[in-house]
Amino acid sequence: MNIVENEFYSKLAAKRIVGGISDYVKASRRKGVVLGVSGGVDSAVCAVLAKKALGSMNVLGLLMPNGDLFPDDVMDAKEVCRRTGIRNKTINIRPAVEALEGIVSCVGGRKPGNVDVGNIAARARMTILYGAASSKNYLVLGTGNKTELLLGYFTKYGDGGADILPIGDLYKWQVRELAREVGVPEKIIKKPPTAGLWRGQTDEGELGLSYPFADKVLSMFLEGGMDGKDIIKEVGSREKVRKIHKIVTSTSHKRSPPRVFSLSSCRWI
Amino acid sequence: MNIVENEFYSKLAAKRIVGGISDYVKASRRKGVVLGVSGGVDSAVCAVLAKKALGSMNVLGLLMPNGDLFPDDVMDAKEVCRRTGIRNKTINIRPAVEALEGIVSCVGGRKPGNVDVGNIAARARMTILYGAASSKNYLVLGTGNKTELLLGYFTKYGDGGADILPIGDLYKWQVRELAREVGVPEKIIKKPPTAGLWRGQTDEGELGLSYPFADKVLSMFLEGGMDGKDIIKEVGSREKVRKIHKIVTSTSHKRSPPRVFSLSSCRWI
Repeated sequence: MNIVENEFYSKLAAKRIVGGISDYVKASRRKGVVLGVSGGVDSAVCAVLAKKALGSMNVLGLLMPNGDLFPDDVMDAKEVCRRTGIRNKTINIRPAVEALEGIVSCVGGRKPGNVDVGNIAARARMTILYGAASSKNYLVLGTGNKTELLLGYFTKYGDGGADILPIGDLYKWQVRELAREVGVPEKIIKKPPTAGLWRGQTDEGELGLSYPFADKVLSMFLEGGMDGKDIIKEVGSREKVRKIHKIVTSTSHKRSPPRVFSLSSCRWI
Repeated sequence: MNIVENEFYSKLAAKRIVGGISDYVKASRRKGVVLGVSGGVDSAVCAVLAKKALGSMNVLGLLMPNGDLFPDDVMDAKEVCRRTGIRNKTINIRPAVEALEGIVSCVGGRKPGNVDVGNIAARARMTILYGAASSKNYLVLGTGNKTELLLGYFTKYGDGGADILPIGDLYKWQVRELAREVGVPEKIIKKPPTAGLWRGQTDEGELGLSYPFADKVLSMFLEGGMDGKDIIKEVGSREKVRKIHKIVTSTSHKRSPPRVFSLSSCRWI
């Protein structure tokens, strides 16, 4: 896509998503939305779109650091709330994560590793977002994008647990374009995406894939109508294309409701 | 249905579900399952079926009381584990629930009510089940039945958050039949279903519907191919049939993945 197409797309996408949030919240008879604001570009874009859809008084941003691990991200998240004017609260989730970690250690017979603790924190945040939503008659707005969803790069029933995913159909590059369109600070757009699991952790390092490359391959698979062979020819790496294909198929359970066993879905003979 | 049909159905259902669990766990390359055992009939049936599918050593039952609220249920849950021989651990989730409650109170600006605390406990249990599953390379087995799923009588991303729902296509009456088939003690089959939210709470009291009535109306809607008018004629209560219809439609979001907004799904003009 050239730049003109991108700019047009971003404006249109912003308008449609804003309308979508507003329509869905009304149809659900809720008064607003609550979202986690991390200091990253995804939640920044979501905060702006939600504010445009519902007004700043009907959007609550929760800043939920796990202890004092990432003070710079909390500063960026506060900047997002200040610029959009949405209501916001900062709360340290460490006590809840520690209590859950203690129980999981005891039950699992070993201390949870980095990724396990990240999953516990993500599920604690989901629980807090739903608790806040219930007290205010709000919906929970999730901030996942299409690239993350397809790669299963989220915690099932953690950050993946929400009522609406306004940017869930936008690739990471499209989220960045949209961020520029709606005035998110360049500093936030440009920082390396991270799930905040540990110091120095980046999505791209953990996945072993760059977002531009993943976006390109995924859109060739999905919107480009290309099969694996042609994509490999186009991008030149059989190994990485296969890796992406494998990640997408092996994480499909994270994008679906739990598997229900019915008489017709199980072995007949 | 007459008794002969029921008995046949129960045997067949048990066989198919056992095959389903075994196939799905193998296909997922996991070694077993973890489930919450509450002392109720749903988790008792699931424990038996999982044990038949995977062997008692590959099934972990977690008993997760919230403080000392329901000692009799813990005793019943222990009886289920003892009879099936599955591995099991009992852990008090109160510290985690208290930590989460404290944060939710602070963020929501009010003390969470009974239902809110129940939702927090359900989500804490989901988090613990996934933590245990991760440490053992297991799947999380959810114990919801078809009646609960259709009525949305579960916590979204709490007890509703699982990898597989083996009895998710069985109405409550079918679960009871199946329980008899696989030898669950009559005492557990007969006790009034409860989500354990507070003392004296029962599902039927909270829903304002009896399970046999709900099962009948739901199956007339779904398997019977009957429309609302005919169902009202058959059961004689317009108000209750409308209530069930309303509950099913208003809870459909709990049975679906989060709503993703795409350019095509939002208002075009």
